[in-house]
Amino acid sequence: MKIALDVMGGDQIPSVPIKGAVQAIQELEADFELCLVGDDTRIAGYLERFDGLDTSRIEIVHAAEVVEMGESPSAALRKKKNSSIAVGIALQAEGKADAFISAGNTGAVMATSLRGLGRIGGIVRPAICSVFPTTSSSCVVLDVGANVDSKPIHLLQFAMMGSIYSRQVLGTSSPRVGLLSIGEEPSKGDELTVATNKLLAASPLNFIGNVEGGDIFEGEADVVVCDGFVGNVVLKLSERVLNLLVGHLKNQIKASPLAAMGFLMLKGVFDDMKQTFDYAEYGGAPLLGIDGTTIICHGGSPPRAIRNAIRSARLAVLNKVNKVISEEVKNYQMENSTNGNLS
Amino acid sequence: MKIALDVMGGDQIPSVPIKGAVQAIQELEADFELCLVGDDTRIAGYLERFDGLDTSRIEIVHAAEVVEMGESPSAALRKKKNSSIAVGIALQAEGKADAFISAGNTGAVMATSLRGLGRIGGIVRPAICSVFPTTSSSCVVLDVGANVDSKPIHLLQFAMMGSIYSRQVLGTSSPRVGLLSIGEEPSKGDELTVATNKLLAASPLNFIGNVEGGDIFEGEADVVVCDGFVGNVVLKLSERVLNLLVGHLKNQIKASPLAAMGFLMLKGVFDDMKQTFDYAEYGGAPLLGIDGTTIICHGGSPPRAIRNAIRSARLAVLNKVNKVISEEVKNYQMENSTNGNLS
Repeated sequence: MKIALDVMGGDQIPSVPIKGAVQAIQELEADFELCLVGDDTRIAGYLERFDGLDTSRIEIVHAAEVVEMGESPSAALRKKKNSSIAVGIALQAEGKADAFISAGNTGAVMATSLRGLGRIGGIVRPAICSVFPTTSSSCVVLDVGANVDSKPIHLLQFAMMGSIYSRQVLGTSSPRVGLLSIGEEPSKGDELTVATNKLLAASPLNFIGNVEGGDIFEGEADVVVCDGFVGNVVLKLSERVLNLLVGHLKNQIKASPLAAMGFLMLKGVFDDMKQTFDYAEYGGAPLLGIDGTTIICHGGSPPRAIRNAIRSARLAVLNKVNKVISEEVKNYQMENSTNGNLS
Repeated sequence: MKIALDVMGGDQIPSVPIKGAVQAIQELEADFELCLVGDDTRIAGYLERFDGLDTSRIEIVHAAEVVEMGESPSAALRKKKNSSIAVGIALQAEGKADAFISAGNTGAVMATSLRGLGRIGGIVRPAICSVFPTTSSSCVVLDVGANVDSKPIHLLQFAMMGSIYSRQVLGTSSPRVGLLSIGEEPSKGDELTVATNKLLAASPLNFIGNVEGGDIFEGEADVVVCDGFVGNVVLKLSERVLNLLVGHLKNQIKASPLAAMGFLMLKGVFDDMKQTFDYAEYGGAPLLGIDGTTIICHGGSPPRAIRNAIRSARLAVLNKVNKVISEEVKNYQMENSTNGNLS
């Protein structure tokens, strides 16, 4: 298995992606190879810093251009044919890599993946699937930004894809699927959620009904489905709230020597909490529904997040997430085409 | 001025609402009277616990029925004509009270207010307006649950009403209005937000453009406008995240004597943080757009939240929020009817 990694995407390049790649090579199972995609001279130079690193499983693939974080995805797609994103996706399209990971411009990674790899047959819209930490384990939330103005059929497919990802990559045996809404009753919500609730209830999924925003973090469901607008709002809000609280706490602590001493005593607890709620642990957000494996990481991802995205990509390929999605969507369509459930 | 308070609404009745009422009488300006609405015998009995309380500004109004928290709002409206909610709203409708506050069944308070008081002329849909804490001050978010499937004209009116509430009740001189979306550019978002962005940009409001979920807490805007579906998800998520983090912290601390000592040293800091981010400080959510003053409190509101809701109701009446809304909506409609901006 070969996994391509964009080392020119993210806030600190190429250092952070390369450090993540080295961690993955050193710490994970040895059944994959990495393609580092970007400026070959810089990559080779940076790799030399790691004394004694076994580079036999690392290949460097040159890409002359970089898509900037603020750049328009459609412009990047049109003009930068040699960007690390374009080259990385092309490796997959040509069968030279099995997966692609990038912490670069999300829109560009999404557009290039869709253009270069296409959709899985039967899937109407791909979705970005984010793995949220919960008090007990983790929860897959999708869509978190690939789509807006979704229709019920899209949300049904997101639920199927999220459920398969939870099973095949996170190892949940019968993932509980919740529909994000504003009340538990099936009648609560907007037109989209009320109609989707009926589709999900009639599906073979382990649908547990509507869930509310806070339920995500309490592990009420293994998969939470929503339109990409509300999913993206939830994602950005959640990321920021933790930082905000910790920042506020630190400012208050600075002002008091007693509090500073208390903080030192609590350091282990804070470190543990940071790890529990740290997005870096959960390794990027797969773009589900494309005919390939693309994992999108946060621009500010630390090396550990890149390492964990490689771990997720490896499992997605190994456990044939796309093949299962393709089969289950086909089966479900065949079942329902006879009685018009999906019309 | 007379403010009616539902003492039968909330998780602990009538104790918590009555305690809040007593705090308001003792601590706030003395220019208002309170009507405590509920079981008159229980209210009179509970009031006796407060030795030396001056009850000259407190009136008891009997209401024989109680709307339960889980009850269907439409059923409550139809069947419980003598509920504390129905009696409290009727006091306003008959001109015997200027405002009504309840921590009871939100749907029932909303439906009864709308039925009993009607809308302000020109307002298409009322909205529930929640006051969020921010690192610097507070931010008014609306709608947080009165509406789903909103149209751009509704969001424009929410922005006008939120802006007036921020100015007249919270004292913000020229409230910065943000539109909740998934990116700063006007083109980012779903159909609703893209269309609303144009309406807001053309309005006389101090519109600062799109904001993201996390911006709410960082005080980027004084007013954040959204459809009630996403607003309700954000509200419930935010309330729960803080509790979740503090709960997690406490569990970890219990397991370690050193951490427990550190926690004691940090107690002042935690108390301060709790106060900064405590919803109780911000005194309930007004239902804006109805031809009256209704403030909805969280079912779990402590006495301080009830006291602060009374403070907000007093300011809303004193500073004529509804009169200003009525005038500004009328002016804006007249301005735009000539050039078809709102068609």
